[in-house]
Amino acid sequence: MGSYNQTVVLDAIRRSGGLSRVELAAATGLSAQAVTNICRRLLAAGFVQEAGTTNVGRGKPRTLLRLDADARLAVGVHVDPAVVSVGLLNLEGALLAEERVATPSALDPPRAIATITDAVDAAIAAGQADRGRILGVGVAAPGPVDLRRGVVANPPNLPQWHHVPLRKDLAATTGLPVLLDKDVTAAAVAETWWGSPGRGGTMAVLYIGTGIGVGLVVDGKVVRGSSGNAGEIGHVVVDPDGPYCACGQRGCVAVTVAPVALVEQGRRAGVLDARTPSDTAGAVVALFDRADAGDVVARGIVEDAAAGMARLALVVTNLLDLDRLVLGGPFWSRLEPYYAGAVAGFRSGAAAHQIHDVEVVGTSFGEHFGAVGAASLVLDQAFSAHPTALVEDLRDDSPRARTRRAVAS
Amino acid sequence: MGSYNQTVVLDAIRRSGGLSRVELAAATGLSAQAVTNICRRLLAAGFVQEAGTTNVGRGKPRTLLRLDADARLAVGVHVDPAVVSVGLLNLEGALLAEERVATPSALDPPRAIATITDAVDAAIAAGQADRGRILGVGVAAPGPVDLRRGVVANPPNLPQWHHVPLRKDLAATTGLPVLLDKDVTAAAVAETWWGSPGRGGTMAVLYIGTGIGVGLVVDGKVVRGSSGNAGEIGHVVVDPDGPYCACGQRGCVAVTVAPVALVEQGRRAGVLDARTPSDTAGAVVALFDRADAGDVVARGIVEDAAAGMARLALVVTNLLDLDRLVLGGPFWSRLEPYYAGAVAGFRSGAAAHQIHDVEVVGTSFGEHFGAVGAASLVLDQAFSAHPTALVEDLRDDSPRARTRRAVAS
Ligand SMILES: [Zn+2]
Ligand SMILES: [Zn+2]
Repeated sequence: MGSYNQTVVLDAIRRSGGLSRVELAAATGLSAQAVTNICRRLLAAGFVQEAGTTNVGRGKPRTLLRLDADARLAVGVHVDPAVVSVGLLNLEGALLAEERVATPSALDPPRAIATITDAVDAAIAAGQADRGRILGVGVAAPGPVDLRRGVVANPPNLPQWHHVPLRKDLAATTGLPVLLDKDVTAAAVAETWWGSPGRGGTMAVLYIGTGIGVGLVVDGKVVRGSSGNAGEIGHVVVDPDGPYCACGQRGCVAVTVAPVALVEQGRRAGVLDARTPSDTAGAVVALFDRADAGDVVARGIVEDAAAGMARLALVVTNLLDLDRLVLGGPFWSRLEPYYAGAVAGFRSGAAAHQIHDVEVVGTSFGEHFGAVGAASLVLDQAFSAHPTALVEDLRDDSPRARTRRAVAS
Repeated sequence: MGSYNQTVVLDAIRRSGGLSRVELAAATGLSAQAVTNICRRLLAAGFVQEAGTTNVGRGKPRTLLRLDADARLAVGVHVDPAVVSVGLLNLEGALLAEERVATPSALDPPRAIATITDAVDAAIAAGQADRGRILGVGVAAPGPVDLRRGVVANPPNLPQWHHVPLRKDLAATTGLPVLLDKDVTAAAVAETWWGSPGRGGTMAVLYIGTGIGVGLVVDGKVVRGSSGNAGEIGHVVVDPDGPYCACGQRGCVAVTVAPVALVEQGRRAGVLDARTPSDTAGAVVALFDRADAGDVVARGIVEDAAAGMARLALVVTNLLDLDRLVLGGPFWSRLEPYYAGAVAGFRSGAAAHQIHDVEVVGTSFGEHFGAVGAASLVLDQAFSAHPTALVEDLRDDSPRARTRRAVAS
């Protein structure tokens, strides 16, 4: 249990600006002696520093323990069909370096792995980081994923990817432990870890990338589902008058409000043309630029999308009785002026609206959401005091477990 | 911590056919001395009995401890707009008595409370139960509910009910501790508690009553959401060509596949007429009887409903990456021949279908699902070893906490 209690103490220090040993004992329920022993180990390992004193009543001043933010670092790799983002994060969530590579839509896996590896090396170099301090690489990938085997299965928006063993391949090319999770899971971990630490509650993170997915948090815990694929909402119908979808239904998220679908609507309607960038990221920005400029057709597309997003928000809110809905993704700052009001408006139709309100907010990570989320996977596994993570630590020889042990030792 | 460890031991005994003290220590991680002390208390309170011995190797025979199934009982009250079911359950899940009262659709709250109280008394009398052994009354009510205050807010299918303090009122009329939860939560608790004890996993229970709701279980834990209202899926669009709904959308669950909507479709199409029973329960049976008899219009309604249920199953499966879907409700045995195949068919379209299959099953509780679920709420609070229940026990003075304490003392 030593390493579990150590994680609990480190987590309490991380979530505070600095705590004395007496405060730590009170916060964790551990004995004074246990806290003293753990703090000795944490100081020796360089995770925490003694930083000033605090006076309580007339007792002698107490020494504060504070996290050494750069004692360990985490790399995050967010794979979106539109852009691959790689970030280097320290223990306080500061992004020390970020690299972005536009993803050609037909990117094949071997090229992708070489590209990602180069970007990881570049981020580590740009952050002037000691490789020995890097806990691991967190990869946030589009679903479906096979979490147990660390494989990206067949993402609809990456047509050349079929059962790519991304976790194993990147571990080989980078020489670092690698974790893999679905992109929306990483977004939910980031919101839990940095956005609202210790908050608990039931929350959804609507992540708007090339497609749209949702990260779920129930009673403070991130929901992965039975195989790591929770949060798939591409075939929720948000507009019964919408176009047909490959699934046989009409008006699904995938063919109406997903950014890739908005671009297609823009091209069909002639709002976007041959001069528009061919990548989804560039084309989405171009569509919203046209709406900003007052183009009626572009505004119509964007406003229908906002209404569809509100419908999606209602479905997820009612199913899980959310108390918080977070919106984000690489284009969020462009979408926000059009979406925020409409999405917030769904709340009066929520099933439990007479019982409680739903807080609707944009993510505080801005464009860095993807990379921060992916890196947060590593920190969450390494430092979280969830008992389930402990079980995995004891049972498992996966990269996750090794990362935890590297931290705990 | 004594009462928590006692709950852990009792839970282990309940889930087994009988365990020795040595086996209990191994199963719970408690010391032999702690297990011996707890078993002495459980024997004295009459919760467990010594029942035979087991031989392990050449050691001396070990005495088996077995649950005394009738040591405590729980009453369940399931309030559906179509029927109120009241059951008396023992600790092994045997239904000792069940009372049913048809619910007039316009039932007003004071009459409902008198009716429910009479039915509770009748069930206790029919089960020849000692009132002192009854842990409490679990009430499963249509949402929205206000869990914190024990209030049924404004269920769409009970138009005369507005903020009815059902928990408080029933506690006053029955003199027993009362718990209140949303109907689908009770169904999920029952499936977790009796249907697949200790199974873990991520599961949804589609409960088909007058309307349709879904009970959710994530990683083995029942999901209540932020106010106890999780599982509302009335406005998920399952048929873009369906009729308009009060929410402004077309083809929602509430207006297409909900039994109350099927009855309306049957009446509009002339399949049901003035001789059809006026209550939803009777009319649903009449509609399915017509389909059984080969009526083409009735079969069309029923088959469209099956397709809509499959769509709903897909939405919930994809959002939570389910590994199990359970269907049930008072009419389930009538619906099953038409629904089971169609609903199972959705699985090949699930986002994670290449990673794992989804098990689709009917509930094993048959028509008793409602009453068993409601009574299970009491047993779950009283005996579950979830740490969260412990927290509630320490913090809270709600009827739930009192029930737990009554058991633990
Ligand atoms: Zn679709
Ligand atoms: Zn509706």
